Amino acid sequence: MKRNILLALLVLPATYRAQAQAAAPLTAHLDKVSLTVTLGPDGRPAYAVSYGPKTVLKPSRLGMSFADGKGFDGPLVLAGSETKDVDETWQPVWGEVKDIRNHYQQLTVHLRQPAADGRKLDVVFRVFADGVGFRYEFPRQSGLQYFTVQDEFTEFNLPANHKAFWIPGDYDSNEYAYTTSRVSEVNTTPIKAIQLKAPANRIQTPLMLKSDDGLYVNIHEAALVNYPAMFLNVDTKTFGLSSQLVPDATGTGAKAYLQAPEHTPWRTIVVSDKAPEVLASKLILNLNEPSKIADPSWIKPQKFVGVWWEMQVSRGSWNYADTFNIKLAGTDWSKLKPNGRHMANTAHVKEYIDFAAAHHITGVLVEGWNVGWEDWANNWKEEVFDFVTPYPDFDVDELQRYAASKGVNIIMHHETSSSVTNYERRQDAAYRFMKQHGYTSVKTGYVGRIIPRGEHHDGQWMANHYVRTAQKTADNQIMVDMHEAVRPTGLHRTYPNWLACESARGNEFNAFSEGNMPEHETILPFTRMMGGPMDYTPGIFKIQGFADAKLKRQVHTTLAKQLALYVTMYSPLQMAADLPENYQPHLDAFKFIEDVPVDWDDTRILAAEPGDYLTTVRKAKGRDEWYLGSITDENARQQPLKLDFLTPGQRYEATIYADGKGASWDKNPTAYRITRQVVTSKSALTLQLAAGGGAAVSFKPVK
Amino acid sequence: MKRNILLALLVLPATYRAQAQAAAPLTAHLDKVSLTVTLGPDGRPAYAVSYGPKTVLKPSRLGMSFADGKGFDGPLVLAGSETKDVDETWQPVWGEVKDIRNHYQQLTVHLRQPAADGRKLDVVFRVFADGVGFRYEFPRQSGLQYFTVQDEFTEFNLPANHKAFWIPGDYDSNEYAYTTSRVSEVNTTPIKAIQLKAPANRIQTPLMLKSDDGLYVNIHEAALVNYPAMFLNVDTKTFGLSSQLVPDATGTGAKAYLQAPEHTPWRTIVVSDKAPEVLASKLILNLNEPSKIADPSWIKPQKFVGVWWEMQVSRGSWNYADTFNIKLAGTDWSKLKPNGRHMANTAHVKEYIDFAAAHHITGVLVEGWNVGWEDWANNWKEEVFDFVTPYPDFDVDELQRYAASKGVNIIMHHETSSSVTNYERRQDAAYRFMKQHGYTSVKTGYVGRIIPRGEHHDGQWMANHYVRTAQKTADNQIMVDMHEAVRPTGLHRTYPNWLACESARGNEFNAFSEGNMPEHETILPFTRMMGGPMDYTPGIFKIQGFADAKLKRQVHTTLAKQLALYVTMYSPLQMAADLPENYQPHLDAFKFIEDVPVDWDDTRILAAEPGDYLTTVRKAKGRDEWYLGSITDENARQQPLKLDFLTPGQRYEATIYADGKGASWDKNPTAYRITRQVVTSKSALTLQLAAGGGAAVSFKPVK
Repeated sequence: MKRNILLALLVLPATYRAQAQAAAPLTAHLDKVSLTVTLGPDGRPAYAVSYGPKTVLKPSRLGMSFADGKGFDGPLVLAGSETKDVDETWQPVWGEVKDIRNHYQQLTVHLRQPAADGRKLDVVFRVFADGVGFRYEFPRQSGLQYFTVQDEFTEFNLPANHKAFWIPGDYDSNEYAYTTSRVSEVNTTPIKAIQLKAPANRIQTPLMLKSDDGLYVNIHEAALVNYPAMFLNVDTKTFGLSSQLVPDATGTGAKAYLQAPEHTPWRTIVVSDKAPEVLASKLILNLNEPSKIADPSWIKPQKFVGVWWEMQVSRGSWNYADTFNIKLAGTDWSKLKPNGRHMANTAHVKEYIDFAAAHHITGVLVEGWNVGWEDWANNWKEEVFDFVTPYPDFDVDELQRYAASKGVNIIMHHETSSSVTNYERRQDAAYRFMKQHGYTSVKTGYVGRIIPRGEHHDGQWMANHYVRTAQKTADNQIMVDMHEAVRPTGLHRTYPNWLACESARGNEFNAFSEGNMPEHETILPFTRMMGGPMDYTPGIFKIQGFADAKLKRQVHTTLAKQLALYVTMYSPLQMAADLPENYQPHLDAFKFIEDVPVDWDDTRILAAEPGDYLTTVRKAKGRDEWYLGSITDENARQQPLKLDFLTPGQRYEATIYADGKGASWDKNPTAYRITRQVVTSKSALTLQLAAGGGAAVSFKPVK
Repeated sequence: MKRNILLALLVLPATYRAQAQAAAPLTAHLDKVSLTVTLGPDGRPAYAVSYGPKTVLKPSRLGMSFADGKGFDGPLVLAGSETKDVDETWQPVWGEVKDIRNHYQQLTVHLRQPAADGRKLDVVFRVFADGVGFRYEFPRQSGLQYFTVQDEFTEFNLPANHKAFWIPGDYDSNEYAYTTSRVSEVNTTPIKAIQLKAPANRIQTPLMLKSDDGLYVNIHEAALVNYPAMFLNVDTKTFGLSSQLVPDATGTGAKAYLQAPEHTPWRTIVVSDKAPEVLASKLILNLNEPSKIADPSWIKPQKFVGVWWEMQVSRGSWNYADTFNIKLAGTDWSKLKPNGRHMANTAHVKEYIDFAAAHHITGVLVEGWNVGWEDWANNWKEEVFDFVTPYPDFDVDELQRYAASKGVNIIMHHETSSSVTNYERRQDAAYRFMKQHGYTSVKTGYVGRIIPRGEHHDGQWMANHYVRTAQKTADNQIMVDMHEAVRPTGLHRTYPNWLACESARGNEFNAFSEGNMPEHETILPFTRMMGGPMDYTPGIFKIQGFADAKLKRQVHTTLAKQLALYVTMYSPLQMAADLPENYQPHLDAFKFIEDVPVDWDDTRILAAEPGDYLTTVRKAKGRDEWYLGSITDENARQQPLKLDFLTPGQRYEATIYADGKGASWDKNPTAYRITRQVVTSKSALTLQLAAGGGAAVSFKPVK
């Protein structure tokens, strides 16, 4: 379908005729979702989105300014438009479902500055059944080659004072608890900054919204490449949201250095009147480019244990010595006095390898294996780690030999302390070291302030770093898991070796802070995880009593809920985060972690409400087994289930890992009960979820 | 010798006693140079320098502030001091002389903040017979580990309104012509900025000064490592100079991120009443650390020709195609349409190899060999070059084979376009490529604005980059020549593979601008070259007529002066910069370039006056041959010579390459005359130097 209704305009003299243009809206739609694009009386383009009869976004401005002053922030003229329909299906390397349908109507709007030789801008919209994505495209043109984006003026104007699930717009951290409030009540001021204090009205995406008339709206972006992340400034009076890009280090307010032809990331609006459909949306993945990895056979979704949680709960240390004020160059690490609490030692790592091997866990992460942890953080220091030198008590070769003999892979750890220049100049050597020693996966970390100094975690330079790292690890057939990176935007479609990110407030916060309230895991799938898998590190069985009692620290969960998270939080990389000794008393419950897959042929969201509850069931990759997770917030609740997702006629043994009698996250978190029963697709179950609790169920065919 | 005269003070209560301290000056001296250090009534330390009865520097403040506010800018107390005498001799890997005497008296002044647990600072002075060096040292201490230098308050208070040879304090370029003026007249305002406009009173080091009573004073620094370069703010009323460090990218005014124990570079004051002694000074070299290269046998001083000047004079291009707006990734370079002016093509490079081989030149530089030159400059673009991909018409392997067969080395070229993050992440691969293809030397370039954006060429981050690059090339047994780098500070002692820098206004400016006036080369040795060798690229024989006549471009020289520069400008790396075809008509004169060594056993400065004239003679490394260069500014002059440097009793054939009759830089630059005569150490000669001219003489023993 070609849409040429505006060609008439083009025969008019190429002067600015805002009125004529304003009279000719451009539209696209699919199912209930409709898009309208207009040029206003002031020549500024705007778009609006509706869902059936309901307004999703009122007319919302499009545009951007450039550092050279000749941007697309003034009046523009319409130079044409066209639409096309696409309906295709593709298979991800790994994921929640086997096949993904990419069905949309595309509207391309060609704009230019009023002068005959004005600069040209395209805005490309894709309207899906579950929302809209659009991006700015800068075609190859003589009048626009190199340019610097100063500001983007994209708006998302909400029609009413929706409920919002938001975190402050810190350019350097997304590790915040979510606040649930009306849009009019957004105010980051009382919230303690993790890295960089945000203005009162600046928040992050993915932003989850719910209207009083039951519309669920999620605003985010897809394919963040060569551009800063988009934050949102909230107008608490009008309920308008506007794009705020992360500035660079120059102090000039410059946001992105681009060269045409180029385009921005996609701005995404996912919408439905059913919360589960938001979670099921593949809109963001569909807006990303296909995989760049021709042969992905070396990419393996995986579960892992690791030398990690014991440092989070201060039972041990990353550092080998307590000699602080160390310089990377010139220190003889063998001469340091060991502090006796260094967990990444050969003997201790072997215990993890033994546990992993005994329980069909394929990975063992080891943090603190390499020199530099004596004073790695908070000093804005460039030379902290070299990524290739083990501490004296960590025997790389012996551990590789031992792990290989047990069928286990050790996962490399590269904490950069955000000294990214240092990491970049050492990446080649670091990955060479990994290849030489048989490592196939790496967890990276970006704690602290970025070097190049003045840059931000979520700015263009760092966005490019993450993508370069995904590409460079792919070039070396290495899988990567990034912590403290910018929030994901579906780039794992393009780089399927990029298994997961943390990039949100993980389970670890329960170890060392006031923690994550029980509702947290019911919100994450609607927010952070809209962009991609999270390395949340579930599976804590010792829920209380791991820290000094006076600190009142605990994981805000029941044990059964920890199991459920392996299903409700999708990731191809799932940690069993607790210590082996804490799993030993509960090996019956650990059986679910042992069994649960990390790759799936199908996924059904059975029940969901952000901030309240979530029930998800998934079908194992390549076999007729189903795994279900159900979680609730601080409220106990019943979750009735119809098992009609099961294969008709097949009998399954359902193993139900439920909260035990009297269980609750605060009073009795480790009470659980495991029961078994035979079910079919015609069966029904009712799960009893304790306060802050959950349930996990495996369904295996009865032969 | 231990100096404990101040121990009496230490038994006083450790409170602030400025008066008592002020009463006890600390001194050190050697020959005519004397140093006095005092604590003023305000508790601030100061130093003063004299030369015999003459004041070199009046009492001048010492101190620095930190970003955390607890620096050494307030009152300090004296915690002790000591002196020691050092007299040793060392041998450089290459240089102007075979042996270098390092003779000084050292005074270490221990200071601390007034509180009993106040932070400690040492100031270490070394007094040489030809000047003073001093630096700030931060000892290991519990109260000062990581800190950020906000400002350094070092002053150099001149006693009078000296004549100064200065360039503007551009943090990103040193490629300026020198202005000669009184200190009171320093004003950068009328001077067009090369990169970053400097305030009116900010100038660069090395700063050459001359007092009305005949004292020559040079202010610079030695061993610039992990610190920004020092600029000077000039008080045109008091003739005080004060340190201005280059800020980092944060916009907070932060200058250096340090970790104790650490020290600043040395601040240097070279002084003499004889101009030649300033040029002969080894003070800056002596203040640098010894060589870090255990086996330097692979380091070879060298002469080279290159595919270069023809691009400077616009006869050809670095770029292969005229298709601008290229992206490094995704461009198929073989599909570009060649512009027919790409000089770095296999056949043309072979002509240079042939010429080099025929004239005992060991190196051939080739610029423009690698993809990315289509739009490499002025776009602040991060991905410009990859350093490993040749243009389609440059056959790496064939040229290496051909060059090797002729005993010639091709010199690699890495223009970074100042995208240093890009270079750093590709350096490993780039040097691997060099090793794989037999390259042993690299010329690097830093044209344009630095990435990491907001950093400066002369800031701490880049200072570290240059040193890292010297180290990394050394690790790969590669020699390096850096263009557009920070001005040298004697680090070639520590990294003798770091043969030279450009880092000043080179001969190339004659090709594409109003050029360098005849005095320029008489000033450079007193300024830029105090810090180390310069790749000035002398040897232009086609002095006029290389550009459109309307542009009035020429090299401001006679041909004979071009020869003299090979002696007057010391460098272990000397280019014969003109085109082979321009040498062909003057092969008799080219013989001097062919003969002149680039490594020496001895050097004598026979006559020198900054801005006017310079005559230098040097003895070839390991043989009894002497080479003399004599140059003048725009004034013709006679230079009488006593040849008493020659070995007594030995007869030499002197070959004199002199300006010809009627020669002058503007009217008749290529008139020269070559004469030969036999001389001994008792002979005398008088050289006739034309306006803007010079003379070169070789002395070879008569068997």
